[in-house]
Amino acid sequence: MTPITRRHLLASAGAGAAGLGIGASGYLVGQESAEADGLLGTVPFHGKHQAGIVTPAQDRLYFASFDLLTEKRAELRELMREWSRAAAEMCDGKAIGEANVQPLAPPQDSGETAGISPANLTVTFGFGPGLFEKRGLALNGRRPTALKPIPPFPGDELDELESGGDICVQACADDPQVAFHAVRNLARIGQGVVATRWSQLGFGRTSTSSSRREMRRNLLGFREGTANLRGDDTEAMNSCVWLGERDNPPWMRGGTYLVTRRIRIRLQAWDRSSLKQQEQTIGRDKDSGAPLGGDEESDPLDLSAVSNGKGTIPGRAHVRLAFSIDPSERILRRGYAFADGVDQGSGELEAGNFFICFQRNPEHQFASIQRRLATTPDALTKYITHVGSAVFAIPPGASRTGYVGKTLLE
Amino acid sequence: MTPITRRHLLASAGAGAAGLGIGASGYLVGQESAEADGLLGTVPFHGKHQAGIVTPAQDRLYFASFDLLTEKRAELRELMREWSRAAAEMCDGKAIGEANVQPLAPPQDSGETAGISPANLTVTFGFGPGLFEKRGLALNGRRPTALKPIPPFPGDELDELESGGDICVQACADDPQVAFHAVRNLARIGQGVVATRWSQLGFGRTSTSSSRREMRRNLLGFREGTANLRGDDTEAMNSCVWLGERDNPPWMRGGTYLVTRRIRIRLQAWDRSSLKQQEQTIGRDKDSGAPLGGDEESDPLDLSAVSNGKGTIPGRAHVRLAFSIDPSERILRRGYAFADGVDQGSGELEAGNFFICFQRNPEHQFASIQRRLATTPDALTKYITHVGSAVFAIPPGASRTGYVGKTLLE
Repeated sequence: MTPITRRHLLASAGAGAAGLGIGASGYLVGQESAEADGLLGTVPFHGKHQAGIVTPAQDRLYFASFDLLTEKRAELRELMREWSRAAAEMCDGKAIGEANVQPLAPPQDSGETAGISPANLTVTFGFGPGLFEKRGLALNGRRPTALKPIPPFPGDELDELESGGDICVQACADDPQVAFHAVRNLARIGQGVVATRWSQLGFGRTSTSSSRREMRRNLLGFREGTANLRGDDTEAMNSCVWLGERDNPPWMRGGTYLVTRRIRIRLQAWDRSSLKQQEQTIGRDKDSGAPLGGDEESDPLDLSAVSNGKGTIPGRAHVRLAFSIDPSERILRRGYAFADGVDQGSGELEAGNFFICFQRNPEHQFASIQRRLATTPDALTKYITHVGSAVFAIPPGASRTGYVGKTLLE
Repeated sequence: MTPITRRHLLASAGAGAAGLGIGASGYLVGQESAEADGLLGTVPFHGKHQAGIVTPAQDRLYFASFDLLTEKRAELRELMREWSRAAAEMCDGKAIGEANVQPLAPPQDSGETAGISPANLTVTFGFGPGLFEKRGLALNGRRPTALKPIPPFPGDELDELESGGDICVQACADDPQVAFHAVRNLARIGQGVVATRWSQLGFGRTSTSSSRREMRRNLLGFREGTANLRGDDTEAMNSCVWLGERDNPPWMRGGTYLVTRRIRIRLQAWDRSSLKQQEQTIGRDKDSGAPLGGDEESDPLDLSAVSNGKGTIPGRAHVRLAFSIDPSERILRRGYAFADGVDQGSGELEAGNFFICFQRNPEHQFASIQRRLATTPDALTKYITHVGSAVFAIPPGASRTGYVGKTLLE
């Protein structure tokens, strides 16, 4: 079994993919070892929508938020053009530009992904509210009414240095070095025009190709995302995630809004609570993922069920309060675990859930759900703290001749 | 293709492994999908030496350093007994104790690895110099002379909060959630007896089973570990890594010493340097990994070669100064990349190399090499800063009835 390098991959694909099949999804299939470990996949960068939203969540995340240092729209335009071009090359499994050919110039690609597959890399760009306040950019008239800073919630302990930002880059891949490489090189390209504000490495369990969805568990030990919207549910995506042809502003059609929340988990307190407490806190069986009173993970929540005169799913259970009676309130989640050293205050591992969600309207969707959880508050509140928060408008995808942000900036 | 869960794995292995072969290396082989992604592997916890040293480096690391809160030797003994038992269960792919059976007790396993393979998990324990200074433990007479804090080097900017510690846990696995789970549960078990001092998540490129060694590149974009000792080179391990039957103190026979260095890379400065500068700094070709003047990565360093009246490999090239003329100075490396957010001082991504090495004598081996690099200094020095440092005595492995540290503590 020979290692399959980027170069092999591209050569094969370019040569008409002799012996390889290119599936409808854009994933290369047919090389046994690569198929099984899911590493050979490429996800197209160009399209009606940006990738990394309905794309099945890859195993690893590197997310970065940037402050814009310029107020010249032409410079921002040039940045988004260069970023889009570089992102497309990386998602294709190529080095950016010509990597190691000009000895007297800095390499156009930093090189740490040379020889490996793109690992399903997606790069997703977004614009924060602050961008529309920079007078020189003159974008104020194009600001979406839905793009507002997330309102504060009871219990929030937000750190400004882990919140907000003018432009975001979400890089997801099945290889953390591929995700890191993407952000690192975009930061390199953007030097002088943007400054990194904060960044976050995220992980999940290593998936096999057959188990990408089913196998997730968060650091609470519970199955993750059971009742989530699915990216392949086109109807739900159109009603809850994508802005359609009648939505405003026009430049956001085909786009969506992204909310991030950095949520620390008090692991010591959680780990000291009993199994029953944990299950009552979440409202599900820890092993099976079934709603309390149910049998299987996929069972619908029966919020009216009663046992011994009380709700089978307790009144403050997380699943009860997170549940949206209004189906238009539902969100598309893409969550990762994080572990960032030790919190010197508590002496605990600084770890938790880096929560990402996509929606048509952050106030109507994420904020409505979070307001219920934070103000009731739900039973999980005493084990978690929201320490970072950000919101970004995610413009539509780019065509091969365009770039992400073109609908806003031209 | 059905997902292969821990339960399936254990059931199969327990039933005589019908249809599965257990290789000499202890890796389960024969299940196509699992073999290809390398996730089904188990590495035995018990043995003459601890695992995680000569074990081929897994893709992910979670390393933690603990301060001991007790001076009672019996409590430390009990901790190491419980930790060894839990580590053995986790390395076998089992939950710790009985995970989710007693509703009114806290689960004995936090649960985030339920249903997945052990992903070649290894857990390696070590003892820091401070342990031998705690009077109540009365271990001073057993302190190895080789176990001393690493001396300061020119240019070090060590952060005490990322350095030192009384006990270390190195968890390596091909799944970051498996590595995190190991440390998190050991911290849970140790509550009240140890406090987490610092921890570090590390990553490499996602390997396929065929390319675990060949495919590594560090964040400088260069091939990693070309000239390293190999764990399967028994002669080199015996002369450079393991303490033998005549070495002292007797409790360390079959053990070794571990040094960690947290090395930040100034990515912006590195990325602005030319390809030629980068290659002259390292002393190798960036693409091929060949020594300058050579053709292939495996070519020996020719330190006497001259081009145009100067050394073909420059005098301050990293490979020249890192090279050990004395073969007994060589170390066994196990390095990982890290990316921990943004450094607020420089505005740069806080990223670099978490360097781990094993050796018979840290002063004779790591410190000799590092002293050359830091005092000359080598050309790489201007792009990197050492910000964390620690040293630990790694006792021999445990038998099935014993525990790691037994040779010291009984």
